[in-house]
Amino acid sequence: MWRSLRPIGRSAASGGYRRYAWTEADADCRLWFRMQAEARRLNYEVDRNGNQWAWLGDPAAGDAVVTGSHLDSVPDGGAFDGPLGVVSSFAALDELRSRGVQFRRPLAIVNFGDEEGARFGLACVGSRLTSGQLTKEQAYELRDADGVSLPQAMEAAGYDPEAIGPDRERLDRIGAFVELHVEQGRALDLSGDAVGVASAIWPHGRWRYDFHGEANHAGTTRLVDRRDPMLSYAETVLAARREAELAGAVATFGKIAVEPNGVNAIPSLVRGWLDARAADQGALDTVIAGIETAARETAARHGIDLSVVRESFTPVVEFEHALRDELVRLLGEKTGQKAPVLGTGAGHDAGILSASIPTAMLFVRNPTGVSHSPAESAAEDDCVAGVLALADVLEGLACR
Amino acid sequence: MWRSLRPIGRSAASGGYRRYAWTEADADCRLWFRMQAEARRLNYEVDRNGNQWAWLGDPAAGDAVVTGSHLDSVPDGGAFDGPLGVVSSFAALDELRSRGVQFRRPLAIVNFGDEEGARFGLACVGSRLTSGQLTKEQAYELRDADGVSLPQAMEAAGYDPEAIGPDRERLDRIGAFVELHVEQGRALDLSGDAVGVASAIWPHGRWRYDFHGEANHAGTTRLVDRRDPMLSYAETVLAARREAELAGAVATFGKIAVEPNGVNAIPSLVRGWLDARAADQGALDTVIAGIETAARETAARHGIDLSVVRESFTPVVEFEHALRDELVRLLGEKTGQKAPVLGTGAGHDAGILSASIPTAMLFVRNPTGVSHSPAESAAEDDCVAGVLALADVLEGLACR
Repeated sequence: MWRSLRPIGRSAASGGYRRYAWTEADADCRLWFRMQAEARRLNYEVDRNGNQWAWLGDPAAGDAVVTGSHLDSVPDGGAFDGPLGVVSSFAALDELRSRGVQFRRPLAIVNFGDEEGARFGLACVGSRLTSGQLTKEQAYELRDADGVSLPQAMEAAGYDPEAIGPDRERLDRIGAFVELHVEQGRALDLSGDAVGVASAIWPHGRWRYDFHGEANHAGTTRLVDRRDPMLSYAETVLAARREAELAGAVATFGKIAVEPNGVNAIPSLVRGWLDARAADQGALDTVIAGIETAARETAARHGIDLSVVRESFTPVVEFEHALRDELVRLLGEKTGQKAPVLGTGAGHDAGILSASIPTAMLFVRNPTGVSHSPAESAAEDDCVAGVLALADVLEGLACR
Repeated sequence: MWRSLRPIGRSAASGGYRRYAWTEADADCRLWFRMQAEARRLNYEVDRNGNQWAWLGDPAAGDAVVTGSHLDSVPDGGAFDGPLGVVSSFAALDELRSRGVQFRRPLAIVNFGDEEGARFGLACVGSRLTSGQLTKEQAYELRDADGVSLPQAMEAAGYDPEAIGPDRERLDRIGAFVELHVEQGRALDLSGDAVGVASAIWPHGRWRYDFHGEANHAGTTRLVDRRDPMLSYAETVLAARREAELAGAVATFGKIAVEPNGVNAIPSLVRGWLDARAADQGALDTVIAGIETAARETAARHGIDLSVVRESFTPVVEFEHALRDELVRLLGEKTGQKAPVLGTGAGHDAGILSASIPTAMLFVRNPTGVSHSPAESAAEDDCVAGVLALADVLEGLACR
């Protein structure tokens, strides 16, 4: 499976993946999913929001067990974030069939659309639409960097943007959703475990900082006459690091847009995006307030007009305790060891869906902790351990 | 004249001009120049490097007096930087004809190509090629942000890139070049003069700072595990301001490129361009060394690999004293006042050509000092004063 998926959307320059929603690379990934489903004689369907499903058994029977993840990527992302969950789902089904188990509940494998939000700036669009956390109207407002709207992109990719919206009926048929994902930190590496179970997703959000100054000639404008927004941006980047350190949180300015972005022009606008996350809401509030205070102080000092907009926010997600404990128990049955339970700073479709249905996550060890980069990795043994763990969990949930 | 030039290459969104070399807007500006030349029955020609010339009299007679400037712009530039010099040249010729003067030397008006370097990153390409300060081989290496090379762009615009190169014969026919330009600072505004004469152009250059870190997930990578190049970039931006303040110079980070530039990804690369200028070489050396030292210190602290490349450099340009003094004398004859003589931090084609032929510059007052921005301005009275001053100078040089 990996062999056929590996080349899709890979940049020769960076070695990283550029699989953005509703692009050609995304279409190739989707075709790959469909071929995997059909090769296993699963019933393939696309839901109203463009998420792909492969069903074993009758969806209408209800109380289905669903697994899967996503195939899209961040810019120059790694091979595992998303795809490991989808590949492992198909592999776990193969494993269960080779075990000769009897399925007592319907089983489905899902590929959620546009999880990373690399193109339209909002993560988990597929699961947000399905669960009603993103309305059709809000989705229609989303635009990519070239000004293409989400409905235009869907239509260009051959999907019907008129149909998008909440899909309560579909969710009502699901009894449990389990997402396997490569760990995006080093907790499992430090504890020496190949596989772990998720406890919670940290509250996290994205804020857009617009620093409006005055464009001017870089060679002839006296320093005292300048209103240079790059200076306030720089001070805010450093403030974010300082505030995150104080609170034991993370805060990152990783994306920037500058106008006019000329070598010999003082910018008129520096737009920076802040990603911030913390273990609890209180810590996150402290970090966000501290950064904004520092930004307003430097903006005032440099004559900069600052606007701060919260573009997205996800409160803390505690995965359902019963399902989480069931996963730990099922994994313990086979290995005789207690699987570690760990939190994460990363958002996932499982986090979005946890507001609607029981969800759980399995993490596979990432030896370097590197994520959202071509250097992201997982050892082959750990990937196999992940498949077997997912198979054990699915067997326990769907076959007893 | 302004009415027909005003709409070309103007962005409706910003109100600024986007007239980049060898684009459609540039072609429209060039057509405008040709029409102005032909309407005045001047002999129009394009030289081997794509610069446009409009001749009154026989170029081969030698010792010509040339005036003009450029029509291209920075991203979202103002209406005056460049075009004021070209428009004033045609208007000054109209003025001289209405005065009924006799021309004793050939006169030409020139529009130099690609002065701003907005597209290919190198300023004054037209005059650099002509004077041999840029070789054909070096010019062929220039590429725009989309990877289009300079020869490809010239060819697409209908010019022959094979022909480019030094044009000594053309320069040998020129006895004096006078460029009129809107001032890009507030010296004339502060002294209360409408028109001034240039003394020197500060030494200036562009340096590219590449901060190489490690791409990683912004939500899950512990602060201590990060190699975040945005932090070193931010500290370097602030160091540049500090060093420039200490030396009475200017230093600006106005252009940036980030990879992968994703909201939830720590960057793998932050590339920032530094523009720095000072009144003398010693001060500039001090500023540049101070900024690089600070950058290397922060890079080491954050585990960042830093490379610094000087992309362009122009030493101090002292305009020829004899021609400068002649301009001051000619202006004084009419007004009875001594025109102010002032330096500038901005580069110009006149600065490039001053290494080959006698050149001088006139500046027209800019009430706000704003430049490289739609807010750049000049009062109508001052523009008229500029035309009359240029006519006086041309009359003194070419008609006696």
